Amino acid sequence: MSTVAGPHRATLVGTGLIGGSIGLALRAQGWHVSGVDSDEEAARRAVELGVIDEVGVDPDSSITFVAAPVMAIPEAVRVALAQTSGAVTDVGSVKGSIVAEVDSPRFVGGHPMAGSEQLGVDGATPDLFEGAVWVLTPVVGTDSDHFATVDAVVRSLGADVVALPPDRHDALVAVVSHVPHLTAAALMGIANERASEHAALLRLAAGGFRDMTRIAAGSPTIWPDICGQNRGAILEVIDRLTAELARLRGLVDDGDDQALLATLERAQLARRNLPSRVVRPEELAEFRIPVPDRDGAIAEVSTLASEMGINIADFEIAHSSEGDRGVLILLVDRARADAYRESLVDMGYRPSVRPLS
Amino acid sequence: MSTVAGPHRATLVGTGLIGGSIGLALRAQGWHVSGVDSDEEAARRAVELGVIDEVGVDPDSSITFVAAPVMAIPEAVRVALAQTSGAVTDVGSVKGSIVAEVDSPRFVGGHPMAGSEQLGVDGATPDLFEGAVWVLTPVVGTDSDHFATVDAVVRSLGADVVALPPDRHDALVAVVSHVPHLTAAALMGIANERASEHAALLRLAAGGFRDMTRIAAGSPTIWPDICGQNRGAILEVIDRLTAELARLRGLVDDGDDQALLATLERAQLARRNLPSRVVRPEELAEFRIPVPDRDGAIAEVSTLASEMGINIADFEIAHSSEGDRGVLILLVDRARADAYRESLVDMGYRPSVRPLS
Repeated sequence: MSTVAGPHRATLVGTGLIGGSIGLALRAQGWHVSGVDSDEEAARRAVELGVIDEVGVDPDSSITFVAAPVMAIPEAVRVALAQTSGAVTDVGSVKGSIVAEVDSPRFVGGHPMAGSEQLGVDGATPDLFEGAVWVLTPVVGTDSDHFATVDAVVRSLGADVVALPPDRHDALVAVVSHVPHLTAAALMGIANERASEHAALLRLAAGGFRDMTRIAAGSPTIWPDICGQNRGAILEVIDRLTAELARLRGLVDDGDDQALLATLERAQLARRNLPSRVVRPEELAEFRIPVPDRDGAIAEVSTLASEMGINIADFEIAHSSEGDRGVLILLVDRARADAYRESLVDMGYRPSVRPLS
Repeated sequence: MSTVAGPHRATLVGTGLIGGSIGLALRAQGWHVSGVDSDEEAARRAVELGVIDEVGVDPDSSITFVAAPVMAIPEAVRVALAQTSGAVTDVGSVKGSIVAEVDSPRFVGGHPMAGSEQLGVDGATPDLFEGAVWVLTPVVGTDSDHFATVDAVVRSLGADVVALPPDRHDALVAVVSHVPHLTAAALMGIANERASEHAALLRLAAGGFRDMTRIAAGSPTIWPDICGQNRGAILEVIDRLTAELARLRGLVDDGDDQALLATLERAQLARRNLPSRVVRPEELAEFRIPVPDRDGAIAEVSTLASEMGINIADFEIAHSSEGDRGVLILLVDRARADAYRESLVDMGYRPSVRPLS
């Protein structure tokens, strides 16, 4: 349903695992992809591997992906905005600080939740994002056409888009990514220090321990920047985890089997209910939402869905002939359609809803 | 190399996932397997599934596996010792308290590090232990012939035996199993409580978070007993984890990127070096160790290897004609043979060593 306005030309700023995988997927769709990398050899290698058509920045790019280290992203985004005329997005693991440093309606912050092990361009694969969640962080000033472009391209890579305010993204990834990573490293470190006393220890590390510490095998180099840029949220979640461990310690110490069992049962239920992807048309409803100001509405409507836990399966903007007015067309879970409509109405929107197919 | 003396008849006390998997594997080798379960319907179901030949305790069993909940094991072991004449072993996740409560040279504590999700007999499979570590906890009073029987049968199931003193086992599994389980539950619980405020959170839970919390999906019912029986070791490891998280918190708060990176690099190296199974004959050396008192030597020699991180690939006892004397024959990693021989010599043994094949 979604389409990309303008030429199918893209630029990658950074041609590592993430940038390279985007390049392979876009070229497979017929896009012309240019690319640069701070390591010139890496960019040449990307041409060799068919990840990009040529080295350089294409001024006619309808979309530019900045896939650079977190600290380098704001400046790279500003350069890309100056050198191209289309939408610019990034793939950084932290969003609040980046979005705050870039003030442009053409920029949409992004974060694909995939491939964090940073293997370099040789690990790039066009299906890296198939079924992955890709967070976009539109804000009130974000231009709706540029958001729609980024949204459509990201979906065409096979990803599910979740739209969130930048600070909300950062608070949530501290819980599901950053603190789990630090915890895996802590557990692995403790096991390793004990192993120096008792060599048998690591032989006892069965599947559960291997699962829990797997992410600690990834490259550490990205983490100091992530921790620096998301310090507040990470400290807050470490404090919460420490408090919960202290509570569990108390239950073990007191032999409070009932409370311990209740805690583990809640965790079991939650783990078993972790959502998986659902995209069957018969489960979708189409929303048509007339909006007076597309640019303001796009962030409000899409983040409302994300915060209600409602998946937007597809997304389109039907332009009105008059100025900023238009109609947003969204496909969402039919089971949640009533709740979503009510919340939209509470916010002053007048959506029409019909079942799809 | 190892063989089982006496009839190939076994009894299972408890016919759930673990007991059932042992039964399937033994029957596939031609054993006659009897079994009982506190749930009579479960025992009948085990006959239906071909897990056991018949319901009951076979007094001629050369080995009895007690695969019951931790709290029920000591009494079940005592009953099995009274009803049968062979070796008795158990599969409990905690060993110190069980071994302390059973005083018999025919009992060998055991713990297969596999299949903890407790799916019941319908999940039983004969290859559950293939490549898994199976801890045995012989003590000074353990009879060497009965230990050799348990060791040989466990190896015939495809498991690697690691021999450890019971309290050492408990200290090590607190690090690689018990506290990781509680930590997975804590992380899942925190994510779940945040998800009630921000429904998008769980959609952001990518592969790393799913890996880290997978064990929290297992049945919680076994954990209160495990925590009760291994309280001291668990509290000590929780304290160590809390201290390490506090240290990492400090590094994040101070922006100490160097120390943070060093910690993550140590964890990465340790995770990548987690041992995997090695059993190629050209990498093995055969040790022949004359011993004056087989029963005392068996615990000393096998736990020495485990504590040095040396895998015993196979194990046999050659009996002397005179009383308690005999020769222990072990296959161990050739690369570690010199170090192992030196330690044995320091303990007063006079091993002879030759490369295998």
